[in-house]
Amino acid sequence: MKPYFNISPSDLSIFTINVFKSIGCSSQDAALAADVLISADLRGIDSHGVARLDGYVRLYENKRINTQPNIRIIREKKGVFTIEGDAGLGLVVAPKAMETAIEKTHQYGVSYGAVCNSNHFGIAAYHAMMALEHGYIGMAMTNASPLVAPTFSKERMLGTNPICYAIPAGKQAPFVLDMASSAAANGKLEIAERKNLKVPEGWLETKDGANTDDPKDLKEGGHLLPLGSDKNHGSHKGYGLGALVDILSGVLSGSSFGPWVPPFVSFLPVLPDMPGKGLGHFLGVMDIDGFIEKQEFLDRMDQWILRFKQAKTVDSNQPVIIHGEPEADMHRMRMEKGIPIIDKVANNLIALAEKYNLEHPFQ
Amino acid sequence: MKPYFNISPSDLSIFTINVFKSIGCSSQDAALAADVLISADLRGIDSHGVARLDGYVRLYENKRINTQPNIRIIREKKGVFTIEGDAGLGLVVAPKAMETAIEKTHQYGVSYGAVCNSNHFGIAAYHAMMALEHGYIGMAMTNASPLVAPTFSKERMLGTNPICYAIPAGKQAPFVLDMASSAAANGKLEIAERKNLKVPEGWLETKDGANTDDPKDLKEGGHLLPLGSDKNHGSHKGYGLGALVDILSGVLSGSSFGPWVPPFVSFLPVLPDMPGKGLGHFLGVMDIDGFIEKQEFLDRMDQWILRFKQAKTVDSNQPVIIHGEPEADMHRMRMEKGIPIIDKVANNLIALAEKYNLEHPFQ
Repeated sequence: MKPYFNISPSDLSIFTINVFKSIGCSSQDAALAADVLISADLRGIDSHGVARLDGYVRLYENKRINTQPNIRIIREKKGVFTIEGDAGLGLVVAPKAMETAIEKTHQYGVSYGAVCNSNHFGIAAYHAMMALEHGYIGMAMTNASPLVAPTFSKERMLGTNPICYAIPAGKQAPFVLDMASSAAANGKLEIAERKNLKVPEGWLETKDGANTDDPKDLKEGGHLLPLGSDKNHGSHKGYGLGALVDILSGVLSGSSFGPWVPPFVSFLPVLPDMPGKGLGHFLGVMDIDGFIEKQEFLDRMDQWILRFKQAKTVDSNQPVIIHGEPEADMHRMRMEKGIPIIDKVANNLIALAEKYNLEHPFQ
Repeated sequence: MKPYFNISPSDLSIFTINVFKSIGCSSQDAALAADVLISADLRGIDSHGVARLDGYVRLYENKRINTQPNIRIIREKKGVFTIEGDAGLGLVVAPKAMETAIEKTHQYGVSYGAVCNSNHFGIAAYHAMMALEHGYIGMAMTNASPLVAPTFSKERMLGTNPICYAIPAGKQAPFVLDMASSAAANGKLEIAERKNLKVPEGWLETKDGANTDDPKDLKEGGHLLPLGSDKNHGSHKGYGLGALVDILSGVLSGSSFGPWVPPFVSFLPVLPDMPGKGLGHFLGVMDIDGFIEKQEFLDRMDQWILRFKQAKTVDSNQPVIIHGEPEADMHRMRMEKGIPIIDKVANNLIALAEKYNLEHPFQ
């Protein structure tokens, strides 16, 4: 017997919508939140999909999520704006903010928005890729649970603060860069920990700032390392990117920042004296047509992608990868063949079904 | 005797202006180009200052620089635009494009501009920091000489493609992140090579894709590695950032991109069948006041900076660094005490003085 269930995206979606409705979301918000989670599963980013559904429910039970939020613009100046998320699900707040940025881009050619008082927004790519439907370039970033120590520090000061850009191409899949600013995303450590595996040196350190390859040290007061891992290999750059994301998402929006970001992970406390409300996002949209004739850009993107695919390889069995292409392939495959849900995640989801007296697809 | 000259910034500036005038720049353009170079020396980024003056002259002599360019907007849509650099010095083209972005930000709250047909623009921080004078956030990136191989490749496909953000603070120095998207900037390899030193593993590979610690391997057909160094440590992220910069600076602007970027370094050839003109930049400006009350933001930035400076350190003698602060300190010190110019660079500059029959400050 397979150690996982194979679930149709629509069945998984109906179940997820019902869970969000059970905690008080409107039908529309529940559908939107579910769409963000399922899109992660479809793209193969299993760590950010329905595997985290019980995490959102836990935040709701801890009174950190308002499932009937009044999401609204609180400040704006032509192409830029700030949105108050009213403690809503980031899965709902971020797409609504992105819609505002898209509307403003119709008018001004570009728009950037900061979001305060939000929560974990799922995969950054979902939000950035909303721009692709309009042929625009999209950008999304967010601050997150403090797990990463700056270069020279052993204190958890920053999230794995992701940066995502989605850029359309012509016949090729869109270029979608969606990256943590840490050496490794926390999801990778979680997987290694679950399987009792060691991780490469350079991913995390102990609470005393010593090298370790044991992912369990993170929960023992340790910290993740910025992209670059150590100063000699440019960790000040990864730290700088994480800081940039924190400043644009947190300081600029009016939300909490740095070590005060209210955590999604259950093993970190919520700190007192927060300098703002909830966590923050920063989103942007640009109209390609304001820079260059649209079709010319799409053709040039295809040329760029095809040239990079032909780059000389070190190992002939391992071609150069274009960001977003493996995820687009996975999306196609899973839409057709279903989404594999491992036993552990299925059990969590079945528990949610029992809690809210819902039908579920894990039979 | 010291192995360097200590030169007053104004003397060095007058000399640099005279060199740019000698190759045909207007007084105004020569002053601007010199200001960009001297600002690098003042900030302690010696690799990008007057040490490269003879490199710009070499490009001019190779007929790759037009010192009387017609720099102009060729396309625009409210907040976004593309500028044709007319093969001018990047040192002149980029600040002029940044001025356009600043003017448009007065009007639209945000502006992003692509620049085509330009050349090496010096330090990215100069351009991004122009926004600080208006209390705005500034961003600058550029594609560059192909030296970096994507993850899994051994071919030079990308420049060290820098990303810079400049963000104002209140009483603290502005946050200025100015980073190459490679593990190490080429300037660091040049310094190691000059001193006959080895470099850390993870900076570059040989032409066959093998590890090496010998910086000379770069000129022997080798390549730099993206930030992250190898796949296990996130080099696909560094490669992704380099790709992003190349797409926004090159593909979007209409300039060359990827392996076709016309090189600044003398050991690389200019390739035939370029997909565009010159190299490209991508610049942006955002008005903080459109997001949050300005003074509140400056206070929050100070709070952010002070908290990060207090982060627990691994070694009590090595505090956490805030991006832009060491450079601001260096700027203050060198304005007062002068700029140290090593013998090798001074000799290059004296040779330029002799070529153009100019007075020089290296006596």
